[in-house]
Amino acid sequence: MQASLHLKPALEAISEAVDARFDRLFPLPEDPRRRLYEAMRYAVIGGGKRMRPLLVVAACDLFNVDRERALRVALAIELVHVYSLVHDDLPCMDDDDLRRGKPTVHKVWDEAIAVLTGDSLFAVAFEVLADDATHEDPFVRSELVLELARASGPAGMAGGQMMDLEAEHTTFDLPTTTRLQQLKTGALIGFAVESGAIMGKVGPQTRLKLKGYARDLGLAFQIADDLLDVEGDAETAGKALRKDEGRGKSTFVSLLGVERARRQAAMLIDQAIDHLQGFGPEADLLRAIARFAIERDR
Amino acid sequence: MQASLHLKPALEAISEAVDARFDRLFPLPEDPRRRLYEAMRYAVIGGGKRMRPLLVVAACDLFNVDRERALRVALAIELVHVYSLVHDDLPCMDDDDLRRGKPTVHKVWDEAIAVLTGDSLFAVAFEVLADDATHEDPFVRSELVLELARASGPAGMAGGQMMDLEAEHTTFDLPTTTRLQQLKTGALIGFAVESGAIMGKVGPQTRLKLKGYARDLGLAFQIADDLLDVEGDAETAGKALRKDEGRGKSTFVSLLGVERARRQAAMLIDQAIDHLQGFGPEADLLRAIARFAIERDR
Repeated sequence: MQASLHLKPALEAISEAVDARFDRLFPLPEDPRRRLYEAMRYAVIGGGKRMRPLLVVAACDLFNVDRERALRVALAIELVHVYSLVHDDLPCMDDDDLRRGKPTVHKVWDEAIAVLTGDSLFAVAFEVLADDATHEDPFVRSELVLELARASGPAGMAGGQMMDLEAEHTTFDLPTTTRLQQLKTGALIGFAVESGAIMGKVGPQTRLKLKGYARDLGLAFQIADDLLDVEGDAETAGKALRKDEGRGKSTFVSLLGVERARRQAAMLIDQAIDHLQGFGPEADLLRAIARFAIERDR
Repeated sequence: MQASLHLKPALEAISEAVDARFDRLFPLPEDPRRRLYEAMRYAVIGGGKRMRPLLVVAACDLFNVDRERALRVALAIELVHVYSLVHDDLPCMDDDDLRRGKPTVHKVWDEAIAVLTGDSLFAVAFEVLADDATHEDPFVRSELVLELARASGPAGMAGGQMMDLEAEHTTFDLPTTTRLQQLKTGALIGFAVESGAIMGKVGPQTRLKLKGYARDLGLAFQIADDLLDVEGDAETAGKALRKDEGRGKSTFVSLLGVERARRQAAMLIDQAIDHLQGFGPEADLLRAIARFAIERDR
């Protein structure tokens, strides 16, 4: 309760900052590409909790990274996150009509535009990272691109989504379900946190701590999501719930039960916060985000 | 006829080099992501003329860029090209069953895997470029990423595909059709050629010449494609033909007629070759590619 109260103004501030920058990033063109840009704007502006952008900014704050630059990395990660949602919602994938409380892109426009919208957002993410406005050191830019590409590709998010497709006709055990989630959502959360270390050009020791924090946070986040799926309310969540259950998919809740899943998430959050021991009050926001991860939306 | 005879061994050599590297880039994993990797390998290995990879290598040869490094850029561009084909073939887009003489990815697997295959290939393209094996100078890597992201995003290829969707229910005039093609296919061809200048770290004057060559070549290439669509044979082309006609889409042939289109393509090729005037025999391959562009597949 404390954590989410503490976090609310931070999330609101980041949402506003991100929306303003997306608005500037995607002016509507006066040509036949207009509907694509409308769909891109619809998908990225004014929705979502902006947890990933907040993680980027919180991690960048540890090393005094310029806020405007940190926000560019935040935009890139949110672009990748939203692109994956737009594709994931397609009829051939999860077939969702509702996302962030609004009709999905393929519902408002059509499937072809939804495919192109996702593709476009993905491309722009790399354009944003590789621009020198994101960092004056080209090594940092190229490192950011490399890590984002890995986190979103077949050895990261897309690979996790493939495992998720297979989960529809196989029953995965706990290690495989953990691996699925580490790829599907953990890799991008990991990059969000690690980007602070890349932008701040810190050594491998510090980077390892942040990696540890991100790994535990990512899993806790997913367990909380599975709990929300069972216990939550579709209207509050802004998306369809209880879909995994109906499909017989393994989730942390189906594998562990509600109580053990909740205890596991709490333990992971303690572990995540432990990784931040070397840091002082400058890491308080990362600590608050971790606590928030398991109490949101209930 | 001369040009294509001259070019055949070069195209065969590049196809072999590209296939060998794709094979190494995508080992099949022993986990539930296996089918995704199978689909990625199916899409990228052993198909296509490999015109874009050849353009990269030919442009890199102008500036004595290390061949292995040039091939990494070639892989990245081919990955983006193939990703766009896999998504373009989806039922919600062009709905094609045949590509490069084989059933399309969504036919062999399904639509969900085809979406993820395209997404994955796109991510890997950036991973390949940002790796220091592509260039030791991080500025070059970050420049390559920036230009590829622009060429493939909403201001490039994806934007052109959006215009192509709109073309199904509007009749575009010649300038709009030209713009459509410059985005849809020209931007990536432009990047293929320009990448030589980026890898070779040459000045803006030289880069401008290559840009000019690529712009004229890209358009000629597209006009040749439109001619092939009207006059060609589906079996030789390895894909469905005469689709634009059936949909009432504007093409260079519908706007100009066969004869004027052919003359226009020939003029563009002369222009493209003129841009290479400052170069000696090291540009002969680029000249041969230009000539080949308008005589292929007939």
